[in-house]
Amino acid sequence: MTDDISPRFAQDLVRSQVDLRLAEAGASEASRAAAVKAMLHASLVGVDSHGVRLTGHYCKMLGGGRLNKNPQLKVAKRGAGSALIHADDGLGHYAAYKAVEVGIDLAREAGVGAVGIQHSSHFGAAGAYALAGAEEGFVTFATTNTDSMVALFDGAQKFHGTNPLAFAAPVPEGRPWLLDMATSSIPLNRVLLHRSLDKDLPEGVAATPDGQPTTDPHEADMLLPLGGVDYGYKGAALAGVATLFSALLTGTTLDGDFIPMYGGDDISTPRNMGHFVLVIDPDKFAGRDVFLRAIGRYLESLRGSPVREGGRVMAPGDREWAEMDKRRAEGIPLDPDTVRFLGLA
Amino acid sequence: MTDDISPRFAQDLVRSQVDLRLAEAGASEASRAAAVKAMLHASLVGVDSHGVRLTGHYCKMLGGGRLNKNPQLKVAKRGAGSALIHADDGLGHYAAYKAVEVGIDLAREAGVGAVGIQHSSHFGAAGAYALAGAEEGFVTFATTNTDSMVALFDGAQKFHGTNPLAFAAPVPEGRPWLLDMATSSIPLNRVLLHRSLDKDLPEGVAATPDGQPTTDPHEADMLLPLGGVDYGYKGAALAGVATLFSALLTGTTLDGDFIPMYGGDDISTPRNMGHFVLVIDPDKFAGRDVFLRAIGRYLESLRGSPVREGGRVMAPGDREWAEMDKRRAEGIPLDPDTVRFLGLA
Repeated sequence: MTDDISPRFAQDLVRSQVDLRLAEAGASEASRAAAVKAMLHASLVGVDSHGVRLTGHYCKMLGGGRLNKNPQLKVAKRGAGSALIHADDGLGHYAAYKAVEVGIDLAREAGVGAVGIQHSSHFGAAGAYALAGAEEGFVTFATTNTDSMVALFDGAQKFHGTNPLAFAAPVPEGRPWLLDMATSSIPLNRVLLHRSLDKDLPEGVAATPDGQPTTDPHEADMLLPLGGVDYGYKGAALAGVATLFSALLTGTTLDGDFIPMYGGDDISTPRNMGHFVLVIDPDKFAGRDVFLRAIGRYLESLRGSPVREGGRVMAPGDREWAEMDKRRAEGIPLDPDTVRFLGLA
Repeated sequence: MTDDISPRFAQDLVRSQVDLRLAEAGASEASRAAAVKAMLHASLVGVDSHGVRLTGHYCKMLGGGRLNKNPQLKVAKRGAGSALIHADDGLGHYAAYKAVEVGIDLAREAGVGAVGIQHSSHFGAAGAYALAGAEEGFVTFATTNTDSMVALFDGAQKFHGTNPLAFAAPVPEGRPWLLDMATSSIPLNRVLLHRSLDKDLPEGVAATPDGQPTTDPHEADMLLPLGGVDYGYKGAALAGVATLFSALLTGTTLDGDFIPMYGGDDISTPRNMGHFVLVIDPDKFAGRDVFLRAIGRYLESLRGSPVREGGRVMAPGDREWAEMDKRRAEGIPLDPDTVRFLGLA
């Protein structure tokens, strides 16, 4: 857990230490380069749960054998606009960035590239891959399913993961439009933070083991889907969309069937996680120029629209880019365990 | 507005009267067949706001010239997996069903078919098109942007439409998995219903003209995005996804720029609405058999999972299919204006 009083470290130093630790754990140059890039993205935009704090976890799984140190990606083109990647149980980031590349190549010809990934592992922040496509000028969607920790609507069991949906799109100037959202209202980390601070949770974001909504972080055992007590059927269905694309289309593991990411005894069996990346070439629709002018006008209209008293209107990504600027200037805040593991203390 | 005391009418009778009225208004056989099909879908699954009650509205727009009575769809293939359809300002349902057909043809070869639609008009329930693809065995996504009536997160202006996201997927037996969700918590209709009943709204679903959340249906001037007061940035961004696919990629009208669907003086100028349909062939990923087995197991696990006391766990679509069975047996409830317009009184 990082907060305002956590010590901060320059991104270049953090990057090189993360790379060093993964190299020591045996990760191939190509697979660790992808993991470092994705973790740095997360740590810079403020998604600390998926950032460089995972370095120690990945190193442990490389050592235990769950993660293949030297994965050989196999890309099978399945149609003019579709491909399946066998990730060979390596760091998930490696296959996911590759899927974006493959998706872009497909989209240039077919207009759209849909890439499923099998036999992968935790890939960090889905937004990293949506962003990678948008930075090349393509509208990009990335998703994954993950370990169960979110109740169904009216459910009394951890069913879906926090299953993210990430979309990004190029803009005429500046950084892409970027949405990277969990389909729960809050991440599990938020519950742990409130527990450590002994501070009530908002209404409708977490539940007891019986599925009863609770604001007591000590009683909270699972998350509730986006939409809360009244409209959580929407968030639960969106989590299902992530599972549908990532696991059902690729024939990989369902949320409830994963060997636990953390805490289990088994660190040697691969988890066969699936992901899905969709890339769209604006040139194959109304055209890139039309698209860029339209999104520019859309964002101008959005950012200039009237604001509720005391509020602030932002486009998806604006908060993340502001955080990135701050962290580039002031450093990345790190928790004590990560500081020690990276040898920064 | 329909409710439990509304009179009910057999679907065949309703269908033939809707078709008759659209024919009298001059709609071509092909375009009105699509509109009738989509409206009946909505009326059967309980989405009355997008069902046959719109017949009168569409007839008025056919008479006024906003809607082209005899649209000639132009399909431009843009890549092996992509196409753009010019809807020729006809009933939107016509172009949208055509987009599903085109998408399926593309997906059979390319693995995925992405179809943008330009120069269209209101297409009713997005779920009708996702469903049409799923009934043919394809995972299908359909979306549209619509007239502004939802605030941004912290916004004080109607910015996005209720911009639906609809997904559907084939299942081994029975009716498809179906999600058709507005990106607001509730539809505008719900506010009007509560206003007529003088009954408070739930928290966090509507706001005053200043953007202040309100539960008073008489004060409510706009909807709030899914996620409510705390997490509405997610719903607002999802509404943006609908706009991005439907309007920005196709170069059509932004939510705030539409000539009003209702109530404006202008019923002669086409609205140049955009939609987007994405079709995926499971055979081009892990295979149709793998997909069907996986979604079967997923749904079995979902429907059999523990339930919160007093609650009920359902898969997306289950509520709709139950309502369809009921309405097929007991008839479609219709409001008095629609009963009169269809000549059923």
